[in-house]
Amino acid sequence: MIKVGIVGGTGYTGVELLRLLAMHPDVDVQVVTSRAEKGLRVDSVYPNLRGFNDLNFVEPIVENLTICDVVFFATPNATAMHMAKDLLAADVRVIDLSADFRLKDVAVWEQWYGAKHVCPDLLEQAVYGLPETNRDAIKKAKLIANPGCYPTATQLGFLPLIKADVIDTSMLISDAKSGVSGAGRSASVVGLMSESGESFKAYGVPGHRHLPEISQELGAISNSAVELTFTPHLVPMIRGIHATLYAPLKDKNADLQALFEEFYANEPFVDVLPAGEHPDTGDVRGTNRCQIAVHQPQGGNVVTVLSVIDNLVKGASGQAIHNMNIMFGLDERAGLNQVGLYP
Amino acid sequence: MIKVGIVGGTGYTGVELLRLLAMHPDVDVQVVTSRAEKGLRVDSVYPNLRGFNDLNFVEPIVENLTICDVVFFATPNATAMHMAKDLLAADVRVIDLSADFRLKDVAVWEQWYGAKHVCPDLLEQAVYGLPETNRDAIKKAKLIANPGCYPTATQLGFLPLIKADVIDTSMLISDAKSGVSGAGRSASVVGLMSESGESFKAYGVPGHRHLPEISQELGAISNSAVELTFTPHLVPMIRGIHATLYAPLKDKNADLQALFEEFYANEPFVDVLPAGEHPDTGDVRGTNRCQIAVHQPQGGNVVTVLSVIDNLVKGASGQAIHNMNIMFGLDERAGLNQVGLYP
Amino acid sequence: MIKVGIVGGTGYTGVELLRLLAMHPDVDVQVVTSRAEKGLRVDSVYPNLRGFNDLNFVEPIVENLTICDVVFFATPNATAMHMAKDLLAADVRVIDLSADFRLKDVAVWEQWYGAKHVCPDLLEQAVYGLPETNRDAIKKAKLIANPGCYPTATQLGFLPLIKADVIDTSMLISDAKSGVSGAGRSASVVGLMSESGESFKAYGVPGHRHLPEISQELGAISNSAVELTFTPHLVPMIRGIHATLYAPLKDKNADLQALFEEFYANEPFVDVLPAGEHPDTGDVRGTNRCQIAVHQPQGGNVVTVLSVIDNLVKGASGQAIHNMNIMFGLDERAGLNQVGLYP
Amino acid sequence: MIKVGIVGGTGYTGVELLRLLAMHPDVDVQVVTSRAEKGLRVDSVYPNLRGFNDLNFVEPIVENLTICDVVFFATPNATAMHMAKDLLAADVRVIDLSADFRLKDVAVWEQWYGAKHVCPDLLEQAVYGLPETNRDAIKKAKLIANPGCYPTATQLGFLPLIKADVIDTSMLISDAKSGVSGAGRSASVVGLMSESGESFKAYGVPGHRHLPEISQELGAISNSAVELTFTPHLVPMIRGIHATLYAPLKDKNADLQALFEEFYANEPFVDVLPAGEHPDTGDVRGTNRCQIAVHQPQGGNVVTVLSVIDNLVKGASGQAIHNMNIMFGLDERAGLNQVGLYP
Repeated sequence: MIKVGIVGGTGYTGVELLRLLAMHPDVDVQVVTSRAEKGLRVDSVYPNLRGFNDLNFVEPIVENLTICDVVFFATPNATAMHMAKDLLAADVRVIDLSADFRLKDVAVWEQWYGAKHVCPDLLEQAVYGLPETNRDAIKKAKLIANPGCYPTATQLGFLPLIKADVIDTSMLISDAKSGVSGAGRSASVVGLMSESGESFKAYGVPGHRHLPEISQELGAISNSAVELTFTPHLVPMIRGIHATLYAPLKDKNADLQALFEEFYANEPFVDVLPAGEHPDTGDVRGTNRCQIAVHQPQGGNVVTVLSVIDNLVKGASGQAIHNMNIMFGLDERAGLNQVGLYP
Repeated sequence: MIKVGIVGGTGYTGVELLRLLAMHPDVDVQVVTSRAEKGLRVDSVYPNLRGFNDLNFVEPIVENLTICDVVFFATPNATAMHMAKDLLAADVRVIDLSADFRLKDVAVWEQWYGAKHVCPDLLEQAVYGLPETNRDAIKKAKLIANPGCYPTATQLGFLPLIKADVIDTSMLISDAKSGVSGAGRSASVVGLMSESGESFKAYGVPGHRHLPEISQELGAISNSAVELTFTPHLVPMIRGIHATLYAPLKDKNADLQALFEEFYANEPFVDVLPAGEHPDTGDVRGTNRCQIAVHQPQGGNVVTVLSVIDNLVKGASGQAIHNMNIMFGLDERAGLNQVGLYP
Repeated sequence: MIKVGIVGGTGYTGVELLRLLAMHPDVDVQVVTSRAEKGLRVDSVYPNLRGFNDLNFVEPIVENLTICDVVFFATPNATAMHMAKDLLAADVRVIDLSADFRLKDVAVWEQWYGAKHVCPDLLEQAVYGLPETNRDAIKKAKLIANPGCYPTATQLGFLPLIKADVIDTSMLISDAKSGVSGAGRSASVVGLMSESGESFKAYGVPGHRHLPEISQELGAISNSAVELTFTPHLVPMIRGIHATLYAPLKDKNADLQALFEEFYANEPFVDVLPAGEHPDTGDVRGTNRCQIAVHQPQGGNVVTVLSVIDNLVKGASGQAIHNMNIMFGLDERAGLNQVGLYP
Repeated sequence: MIKVGIVGGTGYTGVELLRLLAMHPDVDVQVVTSRAEKGLRVDSVYPNLRGFNDLNFVEPIVENLTICDVVFFATPNATAMHMAKDLLAADVRVIDLSADFRLKDVAVWEQWYGAKHVCPDLLEQAVYGLPETNRDAIKKAKLIANPGCYPTATQLGFLPLIKADVIDTSMLISDAKSGVSGAGRSASVVGLMSESGESFKAYGVPGHRHLPEISQELGAISNSAVELTFTPHLVPMIRGIHATLYAPLKDKNADLQALFEEFYANEPFVDVLPAGEHPDTGDVRGTNRCQIAVHQPQGGNVVTVLSVIDNLVKGASGQAIHNMNIMFGLDERAGLNQVGLYP
């Protein structure tokens, strides 16, 4: 059994790791940390875990975590970078669900995250944990930068098109919509149901931290410069991301449906829908699956891709476990084989 | 592997059976019927099942079902009664999620359901499938009447109190609230999100079909007459039932917390919360669990019980699978060991 | 034009006062205070008010408010009591939407609100502002204690029954459900949509502050002792309260429908539905109306009353304006004549 | 008083007309038709109208409507065209909220609406009722084609940019999101809260009927060909449309904020937000207002416009009343001066 530690066990991605790992056949969660809830039973804070977890929260310090084979950071940004080096030195693998190791250029990171990076030397070693592009590197990785939720949905939609060089990457648009759990489990006014229920709005239009992440990754696989306009929106629902992607087609006659089906034929967690369909976030609720449809409206010059995920699973904790499965040579589906909770 | 058939595979309880049975280790779903969708692939109608089910819907006729060891009826009322006799004759066990076999008195059934019962002779043989009261009978049953959703939540809350004879059963109140999936997957105006979203209302106050079911079952275990006022309400959410139960206490000094904890100590799917807690439907979402809390407000003469379930699981499909597990001697938790999908 | 001041202009009841008063023909809002937002334009914080309000928030101090004819306190509890005396001395009438002046017994107030009351001498002079019971006193009042939301819905449902002495008041039950805006506009975890959406739960079952308020008021009109069990619940919607009320009938043959219709025949904001109907919070959204239905299920010994209001209007700001209208001799409907926003 | 008739009084746009007109000072609603509810009191079907409307539904025939000065059609498509000619002949003005008279090219209409148009001769005379572009024509019109909801939000966002010729119209994108009330009040499975709650999806990506309407109107004011990609999505809320619009800028240095502010300076129902803001559908709930923000993310080559309306008001019934106000020389704001219902 792989011994697992979770730092930041009281946020939504932390609890979601606990939910998924409770059903994982090869894993034993041994440590869950929380500064605020230290000493309390985990299941007293999260009654959905009653009967599945008898741990108590402990202090988030390195000494509490060195018994683990792997530690997940389900923490706010600028937390994991303070502990990663010591854990790696103690031969503990690290999977960071936050943004600390996602950007290769430390100056860009510091600009967007407004903090000094304390271990820029780890950035090169960190592997960006999108299995669909980096599976081989993940196998050998000690430190995983788990992708953001919007970047996951966006990249999976654009990847086949860019790899096949059928779109003009100078005017990419990702119009993305997220359920409110993406904002995390911190007290706030904007997250109140009275504010976010029965309403819809964009936010961060001038610039959102996931923009440089997507640009970096798409740029790395593209032959030409990538110019992306990224607009996140808040949807009055709890879970789910829907990315609606647009790009000018270089070739109106490309068989886009076949392109997507072939590209993802062997991926366990990307499901290309039949031609003409529209994916629904409700069909992937609770699962690690991305469902995708590709359209060419009116046979015109623009391709429209619809890509849905559960932001807490494929967009965070599920993808992190997928990375763990790859790192430890397990069945990639282990612990992640749920059917979407519909309705 | 137990060969399973599902009649009525396009309603919410039918799809929920398919979701849960896809993860059941001892079951092979071999037949799914739907008159309306006959010939279509199941996963073309329910994209959450893509990759988990490659069946096509077939006609709901007995001949299609006799290869099964057990058939679940996830159908509207007054459907199962037309096929149950032939299936039983063919040695197929039947678990009916509808109301056809729940009431022992055929006259009462015909009054509340507004139809002629076509096989009243089966009523005696049918076992009311609430495992917490009828486990032994379920083991030997050929025909299970799976309880209604409101009756499940209500009975589990009142049972310990009635069995211990600590309440006056002449003024029981069940103020029950259900998510909208309880109304099923039929086109309707009242079920539209524009109608049922952002609003709350009672319905069926003069009389609801679950009233005689609850009265029959509670009456059977009570020493005295049961008078129940039952008020169902519609909550603007999809899944979940919360029953708030009230009864006058015969003895203000009874240790109600201990009573509940002992009563349910060995039940795999009833979880009594610590004293002072309030269960939340969100913590049992997607699970077969009932979470219960018992209160005696202000130390007064009234006991208040809070009982929550997922109406589609413990209130329908999950309980049906629990019954199947008991009937076939399987681990009672098989296929039903999910952690609640929070948030 | 009546000159109005609003203390606490950034909570939901404050904003709702601003919305309603913007459409009131006889009122000029001259002062809106907010300690946190001091100096900002009101409509920069609340874009729904753009074009309707060009004020800036000012400091909540008495000197800023003495130009007003009346000041509304839309503040947390234990705030109004610090300013009321000085305002009254300056001949400014005070309508307090918080709980500071609702309880006549200062010891009870201090027990439930956990604070020292700083002006207990004002309690006697304060008029409990439920127009349906206290209209004459309100006309002459200088200081109004505006009722709580749950107490409004509950009292309006029980009043006709108690006044007519047709129920046994020793076992009253108010099973009440509120939208999340009732918890106010303060940053919190429990108010997050991820927590309160798609879920339903009771809270405060051992004891809620609205219990003594309801008991005091119902007790004052009852011939016999009132024993009330009060259970508040949180509904995943923004606005609305639904109180489901139960009481044992002294007389099974009383004409309850006629009783209610006659009792409220002349009330502008209480609407008794036809026999057999079920009110819906969605029909009173945005209005000062209470819609009520009375049932006697199965012709039995228990009366069930269904009473709905918009918690921010009839349960708070609308009722406060109704009180103002009465105090200043205006048309009671002035500014309050909206049609419910359905759907 | 202007005598008004409403055909189709049981859909959401019909009820919304009744809500708004109940508060209109210059209007008397005299006829409300409904084939299905003929004979019933209007307020028995819509309890929110109790006390505001004492009419009964009548048969939708011309003879019942000729007493009116103006008739609103709040009907499904292909209904108004059967009665418009006779009403106009009887000197009754017609405002059609459906699509029957929106497209000038009858062949295009018949292709997208799948029916034979019965009065193509009226198409030329019909005035497209978007006051912000057609105010002068509306003043003289006898027959108004009231714009669709998506077209209203989309056009108001693109208009200033196209008129000022600062964008390349060959790659316009309207990524639009609508609350579920846009689908109307007809029984359906997809509209069930169990289906449309807690989920988000696109629909009609290959082609939606509002595409030719937007293209026609934007094309009429553009110097160059308009190529539009239009993607509608369904949001789990009741009211509101958010259109997120993208276009390549011809001139990166244009002052877009000033352009929008000047363009809409005198419009009573279009509100340009300050630079950097993001409009929220919740702020225009229940109102006839469009709130707009214009952004140029990262100072790049793409302009992003955010445009929100209440689909039932500015997107339907409110705009229809605005048209009536203009036609009859009333104050344009009459009956439409509500503050948004926040929260």
